[in-house]
Amino acid sequence: MRWKRMLWSTAVAMSFSPLAQADEGMWMPSQLPSIGRPLKAAGYRGDPSALADLTRPPLSAVVKVGGATGAFVSEQGLVLTNHHVAFGVIQYNSNAQRNLIEQGYVATDRSEELPANPDFRLRVTVGFEQVTDRVLTDARGKTGRAYYDAVDAAGKALVAACEREDGMRCSVATLFYGRDFYLVKQLELRDVRLVYAPPRAIGNYGDEVDNFMWPRHSGDFTVLRAYVGPDGKPADYSKDNRPYTPPEHLKIAREGVNEGDFVMLAGYPGITYRHRSAAEFADQVQWRLPASVAAMKQLQEVIEDAGEKDAQAKIRYASQLQSLKNNIKRFSGELEGLKRSDAVAVRQQDEAAMLAWLDKQGTAKALRPQIDAAMAAIAAGNASRERDLLLGLLQSQTQLLRSALRLQRLAHERGKPDAERENGYQQRDEELIASGLRQVQRRYDPAVEKRLLTALLTRYQQLPAAQHVAEFDAAFGRTPTELATTLDRVYAATALGDEAQRLRWMDADAAALATADDSLLQLAAKLQPALLRIDDERKAREGDLLRLRPAYMQALIAYREQQGRAVYPDANATLRVSYGKVTALKARDAVGYAPLTSTAGIVEKNTGVAPFDAPKPLLDAIARGDYAGYLDPKSGSMPVNFLSNLDTTGGNSGSPVLNAKGELVGLNFDSNWEAVSASWMFDPRYKRAIHVDLRYMRWLMDKVYPAPWLLQELGVPAR
Amino acid sequence: MRWKRMLWSTAVAMSFSPLAQADEGMWMPSQLPSIGRPLKAAGYRGDPSALADLTRPPLSAVVKVGGATGAFVSEQGLVLTNHHVAFGVIQYNSNAQRNLIEQGYVATDRSEELPANPDFRLRVTVGFEQVTDRVLTDARGKTGRAYYDAVDAAGKALVAACEREDGMRCSVATLFYGRDFYLVKQLELRDVRLVYAPPRAIGNYGDEVDNFMWPRHSGDFTVLRAYVGPDGKPADYSKDNRPYTPPEHLKIAREGVNEGDFVMLAGYPGITYRHRSAAEFADQVQWRLPASVAAMKQLQEVIEDAGEKDAQAKIRYASQLQSLKNNIKRFSGELEGLKRSDAVAVRQQDEAAMLAWLDKQGTAKALRPQIDAAMAAIAAGNASRERDLLLGLLQSQTQLLRSALRLQRLAHERGKPDAERENGYQQRDEELIASGLRQVQRRYDPAVEKRLLTALLTRYQQLPAAQHVAEFDAAFGRTPTELATTLDRVYAATALGDEAQRLRWMDADAAALATADDSLLQLAAKLQPALLRIDDERKAREGDLLRLRPAYMQALIAYREQQGRAVYPDANATLRVSYGKVTALKARDAVGYAPLTSTAGIVEKNTGVAPFDAPKPLLDAIARGDYAGYLDPKSGSMPVNFLSNLDTTGGNSGSPVLNAKGELVGLNFDSNWEAVSASWMFDPRYKRAIHVDLRYMRWLMDKVYPAPWLLQELGVPAR
Repeated sequence: MRWKRMLWSTAVAMSFSPLAQADEGMWMPSQLPSIGRPLKAAGYRGDPSALADLTRPPLSAVVKVGGATGAFVSEQGLVLTNHHVAFGVIQYNSNAQRNLIEQGYVATDRSEELPANPDFRLRVTVGFEQVTDRVLTDARGKTGRAYYDAVDAAGKALVAACEREDGMRCSVATLFYGRDFYLVKQLELRDVRLVYAPPRAIGNYGDEVDNFMWPRHSGDFTVLRAYVGPDGKPADYSKDNRPYTPPEHLKIAREGVNEGDFVMLAGYPGITYRHRSAAEFADQVQWRLPASVAAMKQLQEVIEDAGEKDAQAKIRYASQLQSLKNNIKRFSGELEGLKRSDAVAVRQQDEAAMLAWLDKQGTAKALRPQIDAAMAAIAAGNASRERDLLLGLLQSQTQLLRSALRLQRLAHERGKPDAERENGYQQRDEELIASGLRQVQRRYDPAVEKRLLTALLTRYQQLPAAQHVAEFDAAFGRTPTELATTLDRVYAATALGDEAQRLRWMDADAAALATADDSLLQLAAKLQPALLRIDDERKAREGDLLRLRPAYMQALIAYREQQGRAVYPDANATLRVSYGKVTALKARDAVGYAPLTSTAGIVEKNTGVAPFDAPKPLLDAIARGDYAGYLDPKSGSMPVNFLSNLDTTGGNSGSPVLNAKGELVGLNFDSNWEAVSASWMFDPRYKRAIHVDLRYMRWLMDKVYPAPWLLQELGVPAR
Repeated sequence: MRWKRMLWSTAVAMSFSPLAQADEGMWMPSQLPSIGRPLKAAGYRGDPSALADLTRPPLSAVVKVGGATGAFVSEQGLVLTNHHVAFGVIQYNSNAQRNLIEQGYVATDRSEELPANPDFRLRVTVGFEQVTDRVLTDARGKTGRAYYDAVDAAGKALVAACEREDGMRCSVATLFYGRDFYLVKQLELRDVRLVYAPPRAIGNYGDEVDNFMWPRHSGDFTVLRAYVGPDGKPADYSKDNRPYTPPEHLKIAREGVNEGDFVMLAGYPGITYRHRSAAEFADQVQWRLPASVAAMKQLQEVIEDAGEKDAQAKIRYASQLQSLKNNIKRFSGELEGLKRSDAVAVRQQDEAAMLAWLDKQGTAKALRPQIDAAMAAIAAGNASRERDLLLGLLQSQTQLLRSALRLQRLAHERGKPDAERENGYQQRDEELIASGLRQVQRRYDPAVEKRLLTALLTRYQQLPAAQHVAEFDAAFGRTPTELATTLDRVYAATALGDEAQRLRWMDADAAALATADDSLLQLAAKLQPALLRIDDERKAREGDLLRLRPAYMQALIAYREQQGRAVYPDANATLRVSYGKVTALKARDAVGYAPLTSTAGIVEKNTGVAPFDAPKPLLDAIARGDYAGYLDPKSGSMPVNFLSNLDTTGGNSGSPVLNAKGELVGLNFDSNWEAVSASWMFDPRYKRAIHVDLRYMRWLMDKVYPAPWLLQELGVPAR
């Protein structure tokens, strides 16, 4: 699925059985009243029905920050999010003379708040309207590509109409994979300022070493403030702007939480696959993850080997290498976790039981032919999975070839009305494309790119005939020798290595590009028809899945209902709520992790060398032990981070963590390593979320890098 | 201290205050009646006074196995020890056709028991006699070197007399650093056979990765049997020999232990430094460990760099490199641990308090001048510590230079009556020297040795003038250029690289060696007077410490007595007992380790690749879950290893772990990483010992690699 621009989603109109529920669940706000009983049983003291309304607290205080989350925490527009979410803002305000990344930043009053980078945005969801009928009207009766296009066109029209209102950013989201569609309307705040950030060595203590790890000791928070124009409307930065007044803000709790306490969290989880079919689980575990890791490891080796021989190439590919390593680590962790949870067998048994149950029902069993058709469409997509993986890497892991392909595609899309262009190639995207073309200069080395292409295309050449693409065979040859000759020739003759040349071609039309005298643009022109055709095939398959998969979801929802369980839709970057409790972790045999860490652990980990180089003011304050008013009463130690079983995924960074009274006690910032596989399966034994304990934030603001005026505004004055 | 051959020791004649005692303590058996009250309070149900007698159970069942420990576990001489302790026996019986290391070994009856390597020995302590007066008679009134020599001569005479009895191996041990001396008499059993060994992937599951780690999942045990001649006396292997009947054997418990249960352990801990002075603690932490690690890391880099360029050099130095890495890891761990425990400050405060207390006492304060003199002798030794470290590495980390130096020293020592020769150069040692000279062939490369010497001697050349040695300066030159020229010349001209040449010189006399026409032997001849002189100085200092340090120990014992605490002597490879309980470990902030591991952890760790490649029969048995009669009742899982706070150090490998009734429940085999520093300081927060749970051993013998006849003999028949 590639619905990146349009956020698809679906609401659950049916009523759920109000029975006990596992802690698993990224609930749509509208679902919360229907699971009120388990929510209250878990310890929530508020009114579950009040949680359904996006325009009422606490949900009205939750904001989208880039691809992550934050929350309003004062009447005057203060926003609390993660240090790593606001990192770009801190970086934008840093230079060699004043390095806010290293030193942190404490505005001593409002006049010292620093403007964020101009493209930084806060979005507040103000509308979430069912539009299923409007989206599907034209699609009904169609199949494949036509179904896809009808949904796409209806969605784009709704978004365009919605965005006519000033300051609004809109999208269409599908929930339950094509069953329901919602129009998401978000107020977009463009003037955001930096108020308070701890130094990197607090905000990102442990960095990559501790990433995904528990126990954790990171002060991963930053305070921002949203501003609006004098008229109260969203505006670009201006000295004359004034703080935005949010409809509601969260109140910071006076007390902290400890093991077993109820907690809940709201945010924008990005993507999960929990309701995918058993066949897709098997594909992920048995083929996709191992195959991706193997291919990426080969690319890693190519880059590392090249870097050993060429210092400049090493620098140019450092970022790509880092990204490959991260992906290899994450994919490996996901694979390890899915195996540990026996996910394939568990999902297979569950699905088989669901289908057996379905076949015994009266009307419901009418869903079966559609389910079988969906399964067949999924299986059909797998026929070319090896090829598609390689073609994907060919475009994501090269610099110059990707530039050439993008230039050709842009010229092609420009031949259509803007509204009909492919996502990523509309007028609004062109600046991003240009910026990508410029970046190539710092990340490209012809010898390395040729070796990466050799690795990928050698694998391609070894694929069975059925997966071969005529245009690729013609362009690159069918033997290693032909491939080597082609690459040498093309890269020797292209001028695209020159930044001005690349940018110049952005202004050329399709005809000029089709007859370009550049060897790499000529190669891209030969490949383009194949890539467009493959894209068409994918969209046709996705159109069918969008049409057929709702039957699978409907069967699953009905099956769960008779089990007494509600079903939440897979995450898709829309606002969700999860609840659970502060929970220890038994990660392995005889290994237990307590749910709260303390400042003692900062000292234990500290080596004086990054990433374990706690700043002196922090170490001094710990040595003084001046914790009055902030200690955890149960352990008698100063909390830093805590662990819960809340259901989260990427995008939940910066999500506010609330106690049973709805008060703010923590800030979500990571998951544990054992939970990397939770995007596919929530295993209650291992799935944990990692939060900043707000007592730590308050203590830092009170005793270490004091900001008394800020604590006052946050409603928790210095002690 | 280099009392390797003679084991010095001292008994505690004074009575201890029978007050509460920390779990710390490697008690001499004779001390146990005096700490009977805390021992009973800790849970021991036997009679503490019975533990004092080496010739009564349970201590009469404990045996010394090489540098480690084991125990008799049947009337017919079965001995239980660690797989890693008996590894040489298993290796000796393995070949390409029948690899017992990989496959393990199960004798199906007594006729299938396999002879150990001929130099393998079991020793049973049968006498431990106070000989302080006899050792010190000649020494009294002397100082320095004369004191040293008098003690040395008296000890050697006692040993020689004792060993006149057939089958006995004797040694003199000092306890409390020269205060008391004991003659240790051990029956030496020479015919030992292999009865039962698990495969490597059980006995050493996790290998280096898990070494020093908890949680652990290793079946680190092996069963041997001792044989004697038809006359019941120790004998070399013969078919006609019969099983040895030990005076007593340990009984295996029917039940296991769990968290909080009393346990005790007996064995032969090698060496500890807990009663060293505060200045020695500071020297160890602030200089010796960091300096040793830095020097060894440089040698590691030299070998690794050489290995990258030369595959043969890589193989030849693999063992030396491994040993350097192990030492670097252990020293770093010790340093880390001593810092974590704040050992220097703790010891300094303790010593200062002791001295302040002492100065207020009547007669006891007369000890003060001797204590001050001991301190001065220790400080004097530090004046040349940088040089001594380098000279030590020069001899331990070279192959050919060491051979040359050893040949010269052997010729020198041969000029004396055998009884007066230096330890290691007596007639009994000559076969070992020859074997060392032969081994060089597989471990030497001239280019690498020159680079190692360059690294060490460059450091030497940079030392302050006061630490320079005239003979070394003359031999190697005073500048890098002179050094390089010398090494090139010497190594180009020497014939010692040839094994026959090295061995030929072993038969030459001192005169021949003094005038040898070999460049390296000539160099060694020039260095020898300096090394002998430095050795003399060391012995003089050690003689004074042997004379003076008892005053420090006496003051410490008296100071502890008024604190209500008994003092155990530092470990010196004599038989000791410790007691404590099965104990969890909180190793770091929020990280807790349970005290029992289970078979589930074997599966969790298993990757199928060594060292985590559990054998199929084990994995199958775990999958079957056929644990009846062996499960831990509290957790309901099958135990593998357990953790206690028993006080152990190197040499305690294979020590029997007993429950409150004196029954065998475990087999000690390792410590946790946080306890590496326990040789200097016992920190009850971190010091743990790791044991095989005998329920795991019994289950393996019953269900996985069955040996019902053996279980019958062990008194715990198959279920």
